[in-house]
Amino acid sequence: MPDSSWALDPQVQPGPTNSIVDVPGIRVGQHERRGDGWLTGTTVVLAPPEGAVGGVDVRGGGPGTRETDLLDPRNQVDRVHAVTLSGGSAFGLAAADGVMRQLYAEGRGFPCGPEPEQVVPIVPAAVIFDLNRGGEFTATPDASFGVAACDAASHEAPALGCVGAGTGAECGGLKGGVGSASAVLPDGTTVAALVVANPGGHVLDLRTGELVGTRALLEGDLDVLGEHAAYGLRRPTPEDLASARERATTERGGLTPKVLATTIGVIATDATLTKAQAAKVAGIGHDGMARAIDPVHTMFDGDTLFTLATGDRPAPDPMAFHGLLTVAARTVTRAIVRAVLAAESVTTRSGTTRCYLEAFPSALRRS
Amino acid sequence: MPDSSWALDPQVQPGPTNSIVDVPGIRVGQHERRGDGWLTGTTVVLAPPEGAVGGVDVRGGGPGTRETDLLDPRNQVDRVHAVTLSGGSAFGLAAADGVMRQLYAEGRGFPCGPEPEQVVPIVPAAVIFDLNRGGEFTATPDASFGVAACDAASHEAPALGCVGAGTGAECGGLKGGVGSASAVLPDGTTVAALVVANPGGHVLDLRTGELVGTRALLEGDLDVLGEHAAYGLRRPTPEDLASARERATTERGGLTPKVLATTIGVIATDATLTKAQAAKVAGIGHDGMARAIDPVHTMFDGDTLFTLATGDRPAPDPMAFHGLLTVAARTVTRAIVRAVLAAESVTTRSGTTRCYLEAFPSALRRS
Repeated sequence: MPDSSWALDPQVQPGPTNSIVDVPGIRVGQHERRGDGWLTGTTVVLAPPEGAVGGVDVRGGGPGTRETDLLDPRNQVDRVHAVTLSGGSAFGLAAADGVMRQLYAEGRGFPCGPEPEQVVPIVPAAVIFDLNRGGEFTATPDASFGVAACDAASHEAPALGCVGAGTGAECGGLKGGVGSASAVLPDGTTVAALVVANPGGHVLDLRTGELVGTRALLEGDLDVLGEHAAYGLRRPTPEDLASARERATTERGGLTPKVLATTIGVIATDATLTKAQAAKVAGIGHDGMARAIDPVHTMFDGDTLFTLATGDRPAPDPMAFHGLLTVAARTVTRAIVRAVLAAESVTTRSGTTRCYLEAFPSALRRS
Repeated sequence: MPDSSWALDPQVQPGPTNSIVDVPGIRVGQHERRGDGWLTGTTVVLAPPEGAVGGVDVRGGGPGTRETDLLDPRNQVDRVHAVTLSGGSAFGLAAADGVMRQLYAEGRGFPCGPEPEQVVPIVPAAVIFDLNRGGEFTATPDASFGVAACDAASHEAPALGCVGAGTGAECGGLKGGVGSASAVLPDGTTVAALVVANPGGHVLDLRTGELVGTRALLEGDLDVLGEHAAYGLRRPTPEDLASARERATTERGGLTPKVLATTIGVIATDATLTKAQAAKVAGIGHDGMARAIDPVHTMFDGDTLFTLATGDRPAPDPMAFHGLLTVAARTVTRAIVRAVLAAESVTTRSGTTRCYLEAFPSALRRS
């Protein structure tokens, strides 16, 4: 049994932006539409021009995906050029058409012809269920959302909360959204995650109102990684909990989970990984979901995680890979916590969905 | 070891059209575009309105797919409303967007909202590599091809050869296309297949010029099932073989296989199958490919087969399921043979690709 104590080493620190763009070369672009029945969007995570080694693990019982079979380590293509995350359930898979179009125009893809520009961009995709959240069932992302998300892509830290694919997201009846976090390992390797948190399960402990994700992380680790400091979280008062419980029985925006849900995301690292190792990273990332959401991976969640490994840094030895896996799972948990904390209450034709910090105002330590 | 001799029983006969529409409720629609750099298309296999139990097996090393993860027997959704087969490599996955749109307009899909019309059509898809076959790399199917294929759908026997998703298909350097075949088992159950034959491997025995698929089928079975009678096939003359071999070294349309390829298809049956059994049927269908194509399932083929089980007839007992599997594999082989025999030579900006019966005219017994 290898010694993984160093994975809790205070040397493990968030990157400069505590987001997925702390992995050099990774860009994020987001596009959303609100109002007139709309409350949905698309988030694209772009690899460097030459692509990144890709992996995927589909653990939810109701997935909506495309281009996942080619990521089987037995199969040929190992370079992914972008991952498309979108609202709109299976209708939202169309957003990847637009992402492919934009990447092709940039000459980025798998070479498939005699001419250098004859490429097929490799763009795996997964979707969340957010239909009707804006009031109009058919208001779902199409190819134009993928194009707009690519046009908006940058190396800047992505906006979190109710943006891109997280625009219509909910978390166990509260508002969900996009979250991201990063960690730099002692050897200098960066591992980071971007998630769209839209689970049917709860993200808080119904006995105390505390976010399950913050309690799952070791206190020391949490403090080191700054989530507590950043948000000044504390256990909510019993009054807030009683109020939230009461609303749960009477309105949306209480604690009434949606049955149809899904949490999706991307884990990125600058380590050099094999395709099989990339799939393993995606797999252990689901443990990070399990530590922030309960229940998760149900028959009504399409929970899916992708990995992008850019290979700027050396391949990890077995102990270093063990550490990368340990931190990767924790980074997914942290990204989910940040998604919930960044989310804001929203009111649409379908009603009001409150965010965690509105439902539990006492959880935020005013300074 | 169960006795499967009855699977060769002369009682096993093709259905009325010897095609996939012999399974009651199944419809096929096709759309293609030729000329001006185009040589590609889309074929959609539509389940009955309530959907059919779906399965998939991806055996090629370079697949292009969508909505295959939900077909994992562990996952929730078990009813598929259509399968989209398309040219255009991964770009062609967009055709499924159009098929979803048309099915949604008909109210066909997985119920996802309070209103009956709020459904998400379940439309798995797979694509073949046919880029550049018409001369224009970017001339690939989009959503409009899926819409047009749905509009063209009928219960009539589908056109075979260079139509729909088979328009740009090749088989080991000869012209490929769409093929279909059906068989009615002694208990009255129908099993049928529709394939888009576009393999990199050869469909003929290079020593004799005979189609591998016809030689793989037992003579008795072949005669019973009428492929020989229908086409009057015989072993080509040595002169035809020498001529084809010579052209192989000098031109397209000889026997020069494409490296990038893929054979995809759908096996349909009116039996009542579980989702796991449907996946097993798709898996054994790949044995039918192996008996008609060599090599197949390479790292450059995205070979994928889907199953649609309509459930109009009872669930088979273990022996009956054994027989269904045996015949399902043979039906895929027969469908590939029919695709090659129905294909016609074509000339585009990219050159001429000859069909088998033009390359081996002596194989056809003139009557």
